[in-house]
Amino acid sequence: MPLIDYDDASSEVRAVYDDIMETRQVDWVNNFWKALAVDPVTLRRTWESVKEVMAPGALDALTKELLYVAVSVTNGCDYCIASHTASARKKGMSEEQLAELLAVVGTANQTNALATGYGVPVDDAFRRS
Amino acid sequence: MPLIDYDDASSEVRAVYDDIMETRQVDWVNNFWKALAVDPVTLRRTWESVKEVMAPGALDALTKELLYVAVSVTNGCDYCIASHTASARKKGMSEEQLAELLAVVGTANQTNALATGYGVPVDDAFRRS
Amino acid sequence: MPLIDYDDASSEVRAVYDDIMETRQVDWVNNFWKALAVDPVTLRRTWESVKEVMAPGALDALTKELLYVAVSVTNGCDYCIASHTASARKKGMSEEQLAELLAVVGTANQTNALATGYGVPVDDAFRRS
Amino acid sequence: MPLIDYDDASSEVRAVYDDIMETRQVDWVNNFWKALAVDPVTLRRTWESVKEVMAPGALDALTKELLYVAVSVTNGCDYCIASHTASARKKGMSEEQLAELLAVVGTANQTNALATGYGVPVDDAFRRS
Amino acid sequence: MPLIDYDDASSEVRAVYDDIMETRQVDWVNNFWKALAVDPVTLRRTWESVKEVMAPGALDALTKELLYVAVSVTNGCDYCIASHTASARKKGMSEEQLAELLAVVGTANQTNALATGYGVPVDDAFRRS
Amino acid sequence: MPLIDYDDASSEVRAVYDDIMETRQVDWVNNFWKALAVDPVTLRRTWESVKEVMAPGALDALTKELLYVAVSVTNGCDYCIASHTASARKKGMSEEQLAELLAVVGTANQTNALATGYGVPVDDAFRRS
Repeated sequence: MPLIDYDDASSEVRAVYDDIMETRQVDWVNNFWKALAVDPVTLRRTWESVKEVMAPGALDALTKELLYVAVSVTNGCDYCIASHTASARKKGMSEEQLAELLAVVGTANQTNALATGYGVPVDDAFRRS
Repeated sequence: MPLIDYDDASSEVRAVYDDIMETRQVDWVNNFWKALAVDPVTLRRTWESVKEVMAPGALDALTKELLYVAVSVTNGCDYCIASHTASARKKGMSEEQLAELLAVVGTANQTNALATGYGVPVDDAFRRS
Repeated sequence: MPLIDYDDASSEVRAVYDDIMETRQVDWVNNFWKALAVDPVTLRRTWESVKEVMAPGALDALTKELLYVAVSVTNGCDYCIASHTASARKKGMSEEQLAELLAVVGTANQTNALATGYGVPVDDAFRRS
Repeated sequence: MPLIDYDDASSEVRAVYDDIMETRQVDWVNNFWKALAVDPVTLRRTWESVKEVMAPGALDALTKELLYVAVSVTNGCDYCIASHTASARKKGMSEEQLAELLAVVGTANQTNALATGYGVPVDDAFRRS
Repeated sequence: MPLIDYDDASSEVRAVYDDIMETRQVDWVNNFWKALAVDPVTLRRTWESVKEVMAPGALDALTKELLYVAVSVTNGCDYCIASHTASARKKGMSEEQLAELLAVVGTANQTNALATGYGVPVDDAFRRS
Repeated sequence: MPLIDYDDASSEVRAVYDDIMETRQVDWVNNFWKALAVDPVTLRRTWESVKEVMAPGALDALTKELLYVAVSVTNGCDYCIASHTASARKKGMSEEQLAELLAVVGTANQTNALATGYGVPVDDAFRRS
């Protein structure tokens, strides 16, 4: 499928590209958005959603990137791992932190399989009154 | 499958239960470990792995729990969501933080599907030299 | 693993290849079937299954292809996305329809994660009496 | 986690509930939205996204519901299967159509596994020039 | 969705039920087939597929059941885990074998996540000449 | 991410590499371990876990490799499929056995989707008293 560059984009698409670059303080747009640009409505909706969700709030911006990487590894999405690992590094993730993240994600996938396979019932203490 | 209580456990299994309770500063053992206890070698190996991985290091203990919840939601493992959400709350996770975590996990699953479906190629800028 | 071309195939495999080409009104066989041909029994069984399932019935042939693409995106199977997107285009899928399909698949993966993460109980109204 | 009923909801949440009921022409709100209501920002963002994505466009509303069910089955999300099957029935899905949908989803999951396991390379003919 | 009992079944469905009971040397039909019976064509096709695939061949019948359980645990399909664990026990699986199977499945899910997260390139030695 | 060769490795990492080569009776280390070596603690923990889990016990070493491949196919992990298929071949897996394994894995993924989609309730006979 095509990737739509800034020069070839409609004004509607350019407005999103401009907002991406301004929000992230970068001077280029990554391929994910150039792919979505074939469908300007989905481009806008997805960007506005991501912008709102990834802004720092009760969780800081780095923690949110780490969660994104964890989901992407579990789903096996190579593009998502590459782009959000880069983004997390830019927000300050060290190589030690990445290694620990992957260790947690590996262990969580292991114990998820064990809990499912053994059919472990939820403890009453974990249910909220 | 059976859950093995402390009183019915072998000394090998009790040693693991004791270490779980001491490490976590609690006076009970949750069902996951009672299920694994039918296989004492897997019980010990899994506990030692989890203890090592979840100890604070380059990432703090709460961030590690948040990552665990994110993986468990993505895998759809109900037991794992319940137990690690409880654990994260105990380590200080607020309801606002949980809500933001789930918002990130939802968005990451959405954009993972879009990146995969559009077959987005990895940007050169995301590759490490 | 090897791909078995028509000229190198046994008569048993050729019979399946012939039926694939006749059913689909094409003059070539795609790699999926050439890979399965190392196991002629699985080749025949899988083809007969696919032929029966994908024939128009209560759902038309295009809707079935769209469902196939949706599953393949969710599983992250690159080959399956490529082959069934091509097949859906041949059956009349427009680029606008593909974009909307991907938007639905992305949103469904997002809300699936939210429903799982929040542990939403099924409404009585959704249960059939 | 709690479910927030209309009578206990803030005006911000009620505005979303009102829009859900008006858009769908129903007089109640299902549990998914009542769960999200603990996080009004996510509630609003998710509803506006779903409303935009699920409106008829290049694909009709029923086809979109069928795609939603297909994704939910593949993810194993019980709530999502229940709610979107109910919604698809309301939009005209017959039992025969549901049975065919599930047959396609089952077959797609089977052939996805076979394509992945055999490591089938994408045919040149499936790549777009 | 309904479960169709033998007494309420059409002759087409009964023929499949009879073949299931004869092939498996049992005097009852489990719920999976009673659910599929709403769509007799899918019932027949699925049963014939399962019968052919699960018959002993280059792999013995027990090994095939173990593989079925491993896939079902990884997918998180509770019904499939319950039914194929029961079937594997009937074919001779010991509790020690089940525990080892789950240990392998847990470890494989862990290392799958690590290989994906680290983006490990395939060694030349693993490619077939 | 970097791959750490034996000559560039710390003594801690070399000790693990040596144990891998001795345990497997090979004179090289595959990329998975060279990637994990950026985090020597995870390298050691993962290797010791894999060594313990994959050793023959109630299940023989080949059966364990087959289970590993089945999980890896279901997860869509290309590296894991390549490495464990190679390993299984080395332990005696024939091409016929691999073909049957993939047929079982394909069928299991299909029936998993059908069981989930139809919402089949677990039969009492499958519950252990």
